[in-house]
Amino acid sequence: MRELSFIGGDRRQIRVINSMADRDYHIRIYGFDKVERSEFSEKIEICKSISEAVDNAETVILPLPYTGGREIINAPYCGEEIHTGDILRRMRENRLLLIGKADEGVRAIARLYGIHLVDYLEREELGILNAIPTAEGAIEIAMHETPRTIHGSRCLILGNGRIGKMLGKMLMGLGAKVTVCVRKYSDAAYCRANGEKSIYFYELENKIGEYDIIFNTVPSLVVGYTALLNLKDEALIIDLASKPGGVDFETADRLGKKTVRALSLPGKVAPETAGDFIMETIINILEELGVK
Amino acid sequence: MRELSFIGGDRRQIRVINSMADRDYHIRIYGFDKVERSEFSEKIEICKSISEAVDNAETVILPLPYTGGREIINAPYCGEEIHTGDILRRMRENRLLLIGKADEGVRAIARLYGIHLVDYLEREELGILNAIPTAEGAIEIAMHETPRTIHGSRCLILGNGRIGKMLGKMLMGLGAKVTVCVRKYSDAAYCRANGEKSIYFYELENKIGEYDIIFNTVPSLVVGYTALLNLKDEALIIDLASKPGGVDFETADRLGKKTVRALSLPGKVAPETAGDFIMETIINILEELGVK
Amino acid sequence: MRELSFIGGDRRQIRVINSMADRDYHIRIYGFDKVERSEFSEKIEICKSISEAVDNAETVILPLPYTGGREIINAPYCGEEIHTGDILRRMRENRLLLIGKADEGVRAIARLYGIHLVDYLEREELGILNAIPTAEGAIEIAMHETPRTIHGSRCLILGNGRIGKMLGKMLMGLGAKVTVCVRKYSDAAYCRANGEKSIYFYELENKIGEYDIIFNTVPSLVVGYTALLNLKDEALIIDLASKPGGVDFETADRLGKKTVRALSLPGKVAPETAGDFIMETIINILEELGVK
Amino acid sequence: MRELSFIGGDRRQIRVINSMADRDYHIRIYGFDKVERSEFSEKIEICKSISEAVDNAETVILPLPYTGGREIINAPYCGEEIHTGDILRRMRENRLLLIGKADEGVRAIARLYGIHLVDYLEREELGILNAIPTAEGAIEIAMHETPRTIHGSRCLILGNGRIGKMLGKMLMGLGAKVTVCVRKYSDAAYCRANGEKSIYFYELENKIGEYDIIFNTVPSLVVGYTALLNLKDEALIIDLASKPGGVDFETADRLGKKTVRALSLPGKVAPETAGDFIMETIINILEELGVK
Repeated sequence: MRELSFIGGDRRQIRVINSMADRDYHIRIYGFDKVERSEFSEKIEICKSISEAVDNAETVILPLPYTGGREIINAPYCGEEIHTGDILRRMRENRLLLIGKADEGVRAIARLYGIHLVDYLEREELGILNAIPTAEGAIEIAMHETPRTIHGSRCLILGNGRIGKMLGKMLMGLGAKVTVCVRKYSDAAYCRANGEKSIYFYELENKIGEYDIIFNTVPSLVVGYTALLNLKDEALIIDLASKPGGVDFETADRLGKKTVRALSLPGKVAPETAGDFIMETIINILEELGVK
Repeated sequence: MRELSFIGGDRRQIRVINSMADRDYHIRIYGFDKVERSEFSEKIEICKSISEAVDNAETVILPLPYTGGREIINAPYCGEEIHTGDILRRMRENRLLLIGKADEGVRAIARLYGIHLVDYLEREELGILNAIPTAEGAIEIAMHETPRTIHGSRCLILGNGRIGKMLGKMLMGLGAKVTVCVRKYSDAAYCRANGEKSIYFYELENKIGEYDIIFNTVPSLVVGYTALLNLKDEALIIDLASKPGGVDFETADRLGKKTVRALSLPGKVAPETAGDFIMETIINILEELGVK
Repeated sequence: MRELSFIGGDRRQIRVINSMADRDYHIRIYGFDKVERSEFSEKIEICKSISEAVDNAETVILPLPYTGGREIINAPYCGEEIHTGDILRRMRENRLLLIGKADEGVRAIARLYGIHLVDYLEREELGILNAIPTAEGAIEIAMHETPRTIHGSRCLILGNGRIGKMLGKMLMGLGAKVTVCVRKYSDAAYCRANGEKSIYFYELENKIGEYDIIFNTVPSLVVGYTALLNLKDEALIIDLASKPGGVDFETADRLGKKTVRALSLPGKVAPETAGDFIMETIINILEELGVK
Repeated sequence: MRELSFIGGDRRQIRVINSMADRDYHIRIYGFDKVERSEFSEKIEICKSISEAVDNAETVILPLPYTGGREIINAPYCGEEIHTGDILRRMRENRLLLIGKADEGVRAIARLYGIHLVDYLEREELGILNAIPTAEGAIEIAMHETPRTIHGSRCLILGNGRIGKMLGKMLMGLGAKVTVCVRKYSDAAYCRANGEKSIYFYELENKIGEYDIIFNTVPSLVVGYTALLNLKDEALIIDLASKPGGVDFETADRLGKKTVRALSLPGKVAPETAGDFIMETIINILEELGVK
């Protein structure tokens, strides 16, 4: 039976842990001392030290994101700080470390110790699946923040990547009028094939005034001063792009335009679903590596 | 130019008033003294007394619902109580009174004074349109109250009326797995034609345990003790039916099952859209009556 | 075990017969001598005379439509003519006769003999389900007859009944731009709620020129001279309404406009599916009557 | 005003030519002597020789596919054979040649003469748009060849590329039960996000028996002997992949399985739409090259 050690994580990771225990993995965990024992399946072995969890582990799994900064593991249910280095230096050579949102630092340390590091956030299937809770979370915000229904609203989605595509599909499913702002001819063709309208980014400043809700998915400044000026007063901008985001928020505030920054939605709005998606991705990785 | 007098109402009615002023009706209003003057279009005449608004009016329009009880007009933005009788007895014979959710009392008084009363809530188009904000409001609640996405959730809709149909369509549009609980063969056929599954009400108790979210639209007790007992612990019931609703809430609480009562959603979640729908219905009525 | 006698019918009825045999009804048939024995399940009893099939039958089932006229059963696979009267006069009192598209004549004879006649075509579930093959058949014709894709075409549906609704849904699903021509405000509201545009019949003559494909579902003359004159030359009209249909075909021909009359599509384009729907309806009727 | 010379092509190209003439390009054509003059816009200049059309042309446009083989231009409406070489050797250096489905031969000649060759079939937007008529054509075939409705049918799509995705979307829109056969985890995730089921190719042989209609989009043998053996007798395979296709047709015939090869659908089922897509792609290319 395959053994897995989980160190740290939030609600999503608790979901991952319990679901994988149901699937007959032998699970050791560390970093959840603030969680009731009853929240974990009985089969799970709760370790009293990092050493107990990591020393002989074939596979160690860190959360998404693995760190909140300063080389400390993202472990909100842990009473103490767990340092990244403390985990990696205990792992033996050629062992597997699954990690969410790896940075260059942790990769360098893994190389140093000969550890096989895989960042599951970089897996395409997780990117596709995570677009689901992200889009739903954005829609929930739009529903909550506007005095109108999504149905019949003129929605503009900036960007036609995974999140833009899923948002477009769901908004259409709710009866919104969807336009997507794109850069490439092929993205315009995609939108047309899917029944959405499209505009090009060079038209954005002139046309933004026609829309009720703007969803940004582009992680660089696309909604600047002129666009904000042309925006309807009642319009709402929801920025889903990672920092620094795509909106000049300071100017938006000054002009009295309504904006919402919405980051890391999957873990916030649907931790169980998000946990399931992480779990499935981890299982895919283990299968590919021939780990049973 | 057609003259209309509006007495009382909430955000929705303010929307109706401003939109109709834009469409070249001459509008008098009473019952909004707590609202800023600037929130109303300049063309609108704000009356200082009921008498000024009603005495010579061809058409008087009351809100939805027209009363909160005790013969007092539903006028949350009015500093004083307005009595139904005070309005009707000032209206001249054969004049038109448009009203939301008329009861037998107000109908009797109208007959007495020879006033032509029309309840716009009884109009089929308003029923159909109101299903939109009701369904969206229900979905917003479901998104907020569950740790999972709607996408992929097993949803059960009790009843296949206007709200049930709109909910089904929107939930499918979000990627949910939708089953509708119906009484008639023809409703089962409707669901099948629309790609939804269906079960019959006599099967409800046995099958309710398979679902994550249950939306009730039936205004009589359909989810009783046995059904509640069989419900999954994590499941959520959202009851959209008017009082007394379709769920035995006391038992649900005792069994620790999660329920939400959601009444009058259109005015709460999307007052502007709901106002637009009322306005359009009023315009339809005026057109049918040959009022220009 | 329930016994059923089937007299006559086309491909659909052969499907009904075989499917019901699979469901453990005891089946007798007459009127299929041109069909190979191997096309019927072995459990089915093939009768050599009407008498053998009908004399002791509890339930006799005639096809849809039961007659092609002149009191003769619709039995294309029968070498001889079967007269309606020959069947009914052999049936005993209080027995059940299931029949498709009953006319006043056959009802009168049934009353005379004390036979319990039920017209399964009048069942709402069959009407709803039959809209599926009708709509698909209409779409197949539209695909075949036009040099353009349905996707992106401006389609106008005349009428918002069962067929109009199903057509609208399927055309939207293929990416067409759908407008529905309606008479009632509530139908316009329905279309809006479902993401379709609508126009009123009084606007038809003026607006018909905007559309590429017109589907008529209204069984009375709605597309007359002026409408035909305004129709684009490349446009196609598909008339799904039963005779006399909704189009002035003579004028259309004279003006060189493209029209297709498409009647009784379910049996033509999808006899197996259509047969399944008849079977399910018959089972519903038997269940309601307490026949097991 | 930009001048364009079109040599050869079918119905699609006639559409392209007329549409571009409407957009104020100056158009010369050669290779359409079997087409009535009235089928072309008056603004178009019909050349009497290749020389007249090509000698001074800035831009020459060949059809899709540009050749049917043997270095002869695909020109079904031309009374004589036009040789590729005859066109290219007349073009001056640095001029633009737009061509559909270029092969190595024509590219080599273009390089030799210093002609700037662009294959518009390689443009991503055309690939995306062409999936629309391809999918619709496949659906029309499926409707025509089966005695059942698409609605409710279990459809299996082999491959999740552009055509597979568009087919999935349209089949869902018609109410089919859609499963996609994929190779990658990320494609399975895509299908799940879009409400489709998926299976992996290694499961195909075992599971193919569950489906009514199989659409192949994979251009290599994926449906071999065992899969064909397991296929239901009534099932239909539609192969959309370019030669040699994905089905062992010989074995299929021997086993009595129903197959349809469907190649080059856009030009066959919707030449006008296909022509529009080519035109838009050509305009995009001209714009990108700064040609006005």
